Amino acid sequence: MGINGKMHFIIFYFTSNQKTMTYDPIFQKAQEAFFFYKNVPGKEKAAFLRKIADGIESEKTQLIPLASEESNLPEGRITGELGRTCGQIRLFANLVEEGSWVEATIDHGDPTRTPAAKPDLRRFLTPLGPVVVFGASNFPLAFSTAGGDTVSALAAGCPVLYKAHPAHPKTSTLVSSIIQKAVKDSAFPSGLFQQVEGGVETGQALVKHPMAKAVAFTGSHVGGKSLFDLANQREEPIPVFAEMGSVNPIFTFPKKLENDIVGAAKSFVGSLTLGAGQFCTNPGLIFVPKSLEKEFADAVKSELEDITAAPMLHEGIAESYYSALQYLQGRNELAWVKVAAAKDLIKGHPALAKIKSKDWLKDNKFQQEVFGAFALMVVYKSEDELLEIAQKLQGQLTVTIWAEEEELKDQLYLINLLEEKCGRMLYKGVPTGVEVGYAMHHGGPYPSTTDSRSTSVGVYSIKRFARPIALQDMPDILLPDALREGNPLKIWRMVDGEFKK
Amino acid sequence: MGINGKMHFIIFYFTSNQKTMTYDPIFQKAQEAFFFYKNVPGKEKAAFLRKIADGIESEKTQLIPLASEESNLPEGRITGELGRTCGQIRLFANLVEEGSWVEATIDHGDPTRTPAAKPDLRRFLTPLGPVVVFGASNFPLAFSTAGGDTVSALAAGCPVLYKAHPAHPKTSTLVSSIIQKAVKDSAFPSGLFQQVEGGVETGQALVKHPMAKAVAFTGSHVGGKSLFDLANQREEPIPVFAEMGSVNPIFTFPKKLENDIVGAAKSFVGSLTLGAGQFCTNPGLIFVPKSLEKEFADAVKSELEDITAAPMLHEGIAESYYSALQYLQGRNELAWVKVAAAKDLIKGHPALAKIKSKDWLKDNKFQQEVFGAFALMVVYKSEDELLEIAQKLQGQLTVTIWAEEEELKDQLYLINLLEEKCGRMLYKGVPTGVEVGYAMHHGGPYPSTTDSRSTSVGVYSIKRFARPIALQDMPDILLPDALREGNPLKIWRMVDGEFKK
Repeated sequence: MGINGKMHFIIFYFTSNQKTMTYDPIFQKAQEAFFFYKNVPGKEKAAFLRKIADGIESEKTQLIPLASEESNLPEGRITGELGRTCGQIRLFANLVEEGSWVEATIDHGDPTRTPAAKPDLRRFLTPLGPVVVFGASNFPLAFSTAGGDTVSALAAGCPVLYKAHPAHPKTSTLVSSIIQKAVKDSAFPSGLFQQVEGGVETGQALVKHPMAKAVAFTGSHVGGKSLFDLANQREEPIPVFAEMGSVNPIFTFPKKLENDIVGAAKSFVGSLTLGAGQFCTNPGLIFVPKSLEKEFADAVKSELEDITAAPMLHEGIAESYYSALQYLQGRNELAWVKVAAAKDLIKGHPALAKIKSKDWLKDNKFQQEVFGAFALMVVYKSEDELLEIAQKLQGQLTVTIWAEEEELKDQLYLINLLEEKCGRMLYKGVPTGVEVGYAMHHGGPYPSTTDSRSTSVGVYSIKRFARPIALQDMPDILLPDALREGNPLKIWRMVDGEFKK
Repeated sequence: MGINGKMHFIIFYFTSNQKTMTYDPIFQKAQEAFFFYKNVPGKEKAAFLRKIADGIESEKTQLIPLASEESNLPEGRITGELGRTCGQIRLFANLVEEGSWVEATIDHGDPTRTPAAKPDLRRFLTPLGPVVVFGASNFPLAFSTAGGDTVSALAAGCPVLYKAHPAHPKTSTLVSSIIQKAVKDSAFPSGLFQQVEGGVETGQALVKHPMAKAVAFTGSHVGGKSLFDLANQREEPIPVFAEMGSVNPIFTFPKKLENDIVGAAKSFVGSLTLGAGQFCTNPGLIFVPKSLEKEFADAVKSELEDITAAPMLHEGIAESYYSALQYLQGRNELAWVKVAAAKDLIKGHPALAKIKSKDWLKDNKFQQEVFGAFALMVVYKSEDELLEIAQKLQGQLTVTIWAEEEELKDQLYLINLLEEKCGRMLYKGVPTGVEVGYAMHHGGPYPSTTDSRSTSVGVYSIKRFARPIALQDMPDILLPDALREGNPLKIWRMVDGEFKK
C-alpha cells in the first residue's frame, strides 16, 4: 500500500525511563522512516542498497587502512572483508529486486461454498519495524555498520538503529556516513539509518525502548544472553537474534586421518589460527582417536611452530584470551601440546592442549569458547564414546566430520545426535569461511545463538526482520503489489496450494 | 539420513528438579521416537496423519456427544469442528507428502574459484525435537489433542507431549487413543505421541524439562505469558508459541455503515455471540462514528434481543465472564446498550456497552479481552481521532475495516498504523471463522501472541517446529532425499538462486 502524501507526526510512545527517553527522538525518526520505507518498491530498495555497496567501494582507499588500524587485522584481510561486505549487499539487492522472498500466498475465495462462503485470503511478509543492530568487534565491515544484520534489516524494510562497536569508531562513522549519503541520494527519510555511540548502558537503553521491534547481535555469550533477557523482560517482548559463537568441534575418524595426517593437521591449524583465531566458527575442539593421538599431536605441533602470532583485535580481547588460558593451565586434566604462552599485551600466541574424553565429559567448562587461537584436542578411545560425547555436546554453529564415507556407515545414529547440536555440518573442509549465499545457515541451537530458527548470514537472514500478515477480502486496489491478482511483480507465489509465477 | 538399525538407548539428560524428573521417562521415549521419526519419509508421515483423521471420523458417533457434553458446545458446532480437524490433518498430510515445505536450498560448489574453492552447500528444515502442546478449552477437537499444534508438530517431524486440558478429559483421552492407534498401526515408536494429565504444575514441569524443544499453547494471556517466561528462564531457552487471544476491533466508516446499518449490526452481533463469544477472534471492540452512534446502537440492541444465551464452556469461564462485566459496570465511562446481565452459573448472556473514544484512550483496561459475548462500542468524533486510537491499540490477531473503498483513499496512514497492530486484516466480513489453508495467518503482534512471526493455523504453522541446517560438502549418499542432487522427491528447491523442481 502506498502511504498518504502528508506525513502525520504523532508521538508514538512516551517512555518513563530516563536513559530510554534519551532515544525517543531517534526512534521517532526511525518510526516515521519506517512508514515511508516499508511501502517502497523492491526495485527502489535494491537501488538504495547498491548505492551503499558502491559508496563503500569508492571509499576503499580510505576505509581499508582505517579498519585495519582500528582492528589490528591486516589490510589483506580487510580487503577481502570489504569485498564480502559489498557482495553481500548486492546479494540482498538482487533478492529484494526479484521480490519472491515475501512468501506471497493466495487462497482464492469461493462465495458459493456452503455452509459459509470462503473468503479471499492473501498472506505475505511485512517488515517488523525499527531494528537495533549491534556491531561486532571481529568484523569491522562484514558484521558491523553495513554488515549482514544492517543490510538484511534494510532489505526487509526495517529502519536500523546501529549501535557502533567501540573498538572501531572511525570505521563505523565512515561507513555510517556512506549509508546516510545513500539514504539522502535515494530521497529516503534520514531516520532510515542512524548510528548511536556508547557503551553497554546505551545498548541496553536501545533494546529497552518501546519502539524497538527486534535486535541483532554478534558477539560474546554474556553480551548476547543479557540482551536476550532484557528483551524478554520488556512490557512487549521482542526477538533477539544473538549469534554468540561456539567451539565448532571437528570429529576425526581413524581412516580419514591416517590417509593424510599432515594434511589434516595443516587444515586444522590453518583454520584455528586464521585471523588469530578470532572467528565465531574457529575450531576450538577436535576429537582424535587414541590410536593416532601422538602422530596427530606431533603433526599439529609442527604446524603450529610455523605460525607467527598475530595481534588481536584489541587489548581487552588479548587480556580475556590469556586469562582463559591461565585458567586452563590450572586444570591438571590437560596436557599441553603447545604451551599456553606467557601473557602478551596484544598478540594472540596460539596454544593447544590435550585431554582424555572421560575427563572432557566431566566438566562443561571444557566446552566454553576461548576467543582466540586455542583448541582442545580430546582423545577418544572408541567410537561408542563418541555417542556420549555428542550427547553431552552443547549447541554449536558448526560440527565438522572428517571421515571416509565407509567409516560413517555405522555412525548414522551419531550423525543424528550431532545434527541436533549444530546449524551447519561439514563433511570435509574447515568451519571458518562462512559462504554468503542462498544455502548458508549461520546459526545453531542454544547457546550458539538465541534462536536456532534464524541465520545471520545468507539470504534467509532477511526473514528475521519480517512477519506474516494476512489480508482478507481486500479490494485489489488496496493490496500491495506482491498480492495483487495480476502479479505485477512477477514473483513466485503459492496460489491455491501451487507454486507459480 | 536413515538411522542405524539397532537403537542405542542412552539416558539423554538427568534433571535435578523433582517434579521435572517425573517426566524423564516420557521425554526419554519421545527423544527415542524423534530419532526414528525425523528420518521417516514424508509419504509415510502423510499416511500416518491420514490414519488419525480416519480414526477420528470412524469414532465420531462416540466423539461428538462426548465433546459436546464436556464443553457445553452444541453437537452441530462439534460436528463442524470435527470436520475442520480432519480437514486440517489431511491438509498437513498433503503438505508433507508433497514435501517442498522444507525449503530445500542448494548452492553448488566451485572447486576452481579463487582465492578459495567454493564449497557445496545444501540447506533444509529439520524438526526441533520433542514439543509440548497444551490443549485449549474452547476447541476440544481443533485446538486440542489432534488439533493444529499437535498435527503441525507431527507433520514437521516432532514427537508431541500433549498436556490435556482438564475441561474435557474424556474427549482428550479418546482422541489420544486414536492417535496412539495410528502410531501403532504405522509401526512407529510409541513415544511419538504421549498424553499427560494434570494441572498448572504439570504443564510447568513439562515446559521446564531439558529435553523439551518448543511449546505450543492456545489460551489466556496469563497462562501463555507465564509459560513464555518459564521457557526463557530455562538453562536452554526454548520458543513458546502462545496464542493468547485479543479484542479484534472492527473499525466502521460512515458511508459503509449508512449503506446497510441493519446488515452491519446483524454481522457484528452474529460474530460477537457465536459460540457464546468464546473465540480468540471474537470482536470485543467496535469503533463507530458519532453521527451513527444512536442508529447503530439501536440496531445492535435489537439484534441482541433475539439472541438466546448459550452455556459457556465451564463454570470457571462463566465466573470470569461475569466478574469482568462486574468490573466494567463499576466504570462510569460506560453506558450500557445491553445491560451486563446478572451473574448466571453457566450461561453467557451477551452484553454491550458504549464509551467515548477520549475515555477509551485513557485506559488500557478497556482493551482487555473479556472472554465471552461482550463488546465495547467506542464512539469516535472524527477520522483524525482514529489515528490516535490506532496508535494506542495493542497487538491483535485481527483488525477489521468496514468502509467503502472511497472512504479509505485518505486513510492509508491509518491502514499502515493498523497493519502494525495485527496479524490479519479484514476488509469486510467478520473476524470469527479462521480459514484453514495456505494463506491464513492466525497470529499477531504481542500481546496477541508471544511470537508475531508464527501462526497457529494454516500450513505455515509447521515452520514453528523446524529449524534450518546446512550440510557442507556432504557426499550425495549421506544427504537426505530432499537435498540429493537428483531431487528424488521432485520437490520445489532453490538451486543456485533459482526456484525449480
